[in-house]
Amino acid sequence: MNAAAQDVQIPLRAVQDWAEEVLRRVGLSPSDAEATATSLAFADARGVHTHGFMRLETYVQRVRAGGINGAGKASIAEDLGALAIVDAEHVAGASSGIFAADLAIARAREYGVGCVIVRNSNHFGVAAFYGNRIADAGLLGIVACNTDKVMCAPSGGHAVLGTNPLAVVVPLPADTRPQLDMATTQVSQGRLIIAAHRGETIPTGWAVDADGEPTTSPAAGLKGALLPMGGPKGFGLSFAIDTIVAISGALTSPEVAALYGDPSEPQRLGQFFLAIRTDAAMPAEAYRARIGALVESIHASGSKAGRMPMAPGEPELAQVRDNHGRIVVSDMLMQSFSDVAAITGMALPAGLAGATPIATQ
Amino acid sequence: MNAAAQDVQIPLRAVQDWAEEVLRRVGLSPSDAEATATSLAFADARGVHTHGFMRLETYVQRVRAGGINGAGKASIAEDLGALAIVDAEHVAGASSGIFAADLAIARAREYGVGCVIVRNSNHFGVAAFYGNRIADAGLLGIVACNTDKVMCAPSGGHAVLGTNPLAVVVPLPADTRPQLDMATTQVSQGRLIIAAHRGETIPTGWAVDADGEPTTSPAAGLKGALLPMGGPKGFGLSFAIDTIVAISGALTSPEVAALYGDPSEPQRLGQFFLAIRTDAAMPAEAYRARIGALVESIHASGSKAGRMPMAPGEPELAQVRDNHGRIVVSDMLMQSFSDVAAITGMALPAGLAGATPIATQ
Repeated sequence: MNAAAQDVQIPLRAVQDWAEEVLRRVGLSPSDAEATATSLAFADARGVHTHGFMRLETYVQRVRAGGINGAGKASIAEDLGALAIVDAEHVAGASSGIFAADLAIARAREYGVGCVIVRNSNHFGVAAFYGNRIADAGLLGIVACNTDKVMCAPSGGHAVLGTNPLAVVVPLPADTRPQLDMATTQVSQGRLIIAAHRGETIPTGWAVDADGEPTTSPAAGLKGALLPMGGPKGFGLSFAIDTIVAISGALTSPEVAALYGDPSEPQRLGQFFLAIRTDAAMPAEAYRARIGALVESIHASGSKAGRMPMAPGEPELAQVRDNHGRIVVSDMLMQSFSDVAAITGMALPAGLAGATPIATQ
Repeated sequence: MNAAAQDVQIPLRAVQDWAEEVLRRVGLSPSDAEATATSLAFADARGVHTHGFMRLETYVQRVRAGGINGAGKASIAEDLGALAIVDAEHVAGASSGIFAADLAIARAREYGVGCVIVRNSNHFGVAAFYGNRIADAGLLGIVACNTDKVMCAPSGGHAVLGTNPLAVVVPLPADTRPQLDMATTQVSQGRLIIAAHRGETIPTGWAVDADGEPTTSPAAGLKGALLPMGGPKGFGLSFAIDTIVAISGALTSPEVAALYGDPSEPQRLGQFFLAIRTDAAMPAEAYRARIGALVESIHASGSKAGRMPMAPGEPELAQVRDNHGRIVVSDMLMQSFSDVAAITGMALPAGLAGATPIATQ
């Protein structure tokens, strides 16, 4: 995190406990509040601040307005054995996400593979959170979801698909666990929000403006659309994820209610959870050793001059180690926490009252 | 295909029949020869010539040398119900691929989802061929495989992962069926082979040379490594596919025997087949209508000035329509067919004897 000395740093756990209390106070059940705060802390711990406590204010607004249903409960709508369809009933995405991940784990233990597809869901934070839950159970986890439309076709135009992220998490011990978590856009919307806040320009290839033309202005890009990663490949992957989650009856990206739109409207998006047993052909320990060897091969594949190549997830694991359980509270995050405190009538998290964070870097 | 008048064009079916006879003559069983020739024709029909009959000569050499086992038979090695592990016994990749796809279909009909992972397999052509077989059965098909190492890390270096392609095929009628089929490299090795044959340079970002440094020479790139699509995202996706196929006991990319290496050595690579029922939450017809609407949304998302955006797979479907069942035989392909004819003592396909194709474009 490379925080300078004058940064405001507090224990991540203090923010997590505060956020949980905030979410309970606005109407989430204790378990839904815990699930949501835990998923946000997971993202911040790994340095994925675009999906961390920066999103708390939006969740608070959506719970208060009814877009997130504090009284609902995710349940199995259709059951074919190894494939189950879950209706999330518009609860907090982290709550239905944990329900679905646990169901995929249970079905994989019974049938070798478990596939759960969720409809009527809300934004669930980072997909890797659920993939790690599956990996914690000793299974390989694949998780994907759609979002509201923010991505245009590679040739430009208007937003039609979501950032539709994909996570694949391999069941090695948590501190060395390889994992992929990627949006199918070139960058996330959060990157544009931060660039706009900092007054920076963005490279071409990240976004188009409202007319569908290339832009280097993050503000114009936020009014326009994000470009897919790798042109037609990222666009095709995003489309594929939409077609998979649509099996549940979830809305497709063009129809999903915007996360930053009317907070009273449930998003009705879809999520996909796949758990696969790794011990069918060999003991789980042998599988882990083979993946460990693959990671070693990657580490040894660099050129003499270059940096050591890393397996996916290793940069985020390094963040977790370097953070020492603390979070840097930028002025942008401080402002957001102040707004949440004002809305809920709560004090700021311990350690933040009276602090003046430095400008967001 | 936009073939000029002097191109040598013959019916694709004539080449397919000839290839089938060639493969039988060198030692494949009638059904394995048919599977292989059909998979190659599928690629050429869609304009994916890098994976079409251009590969026949390599397959012929591998069957003759024993790397492809003409006497083997793929079978179920482990069976957990919805997850099955298949041992391909080094048969032609198309043969074990069809066996695995059909098994995934059968298990999906029983459990809602069917997952088959194959070990001891050989190169199986384009992944979309098997995804379409699953879609022909009315199920959503996801197919991926690893290959021998050809891709370096985003920061450069030596080859460590494969092109590890991924296909997702949505069960709409074949002539309007959306489908993704992508390598996780920026481009395929076939593109470099063709560029080298034509004496062209390649853009930076496609490949590095033997020292792990960026290059614009396709020949140097073929001695070095391909770069991943979208930097860390493509690299991570390739890694993820390796970790999935490794569940079967398949070798990981760094260990897989090279397709263009010793033809007597089985590749021992892995393949992944997932079939998902689309009728769990709604009738299959309703699902197809929803995906049709999503494709319409994409068509309508262009800017005024730009081309109409297309769903994944639509460019290849346009190729199938435009080809009228014919294949343009380039001088490169003609040379390869002549070599195959010389090896097997067979005449060239009907319509090619005595023809002088124009230079490869």
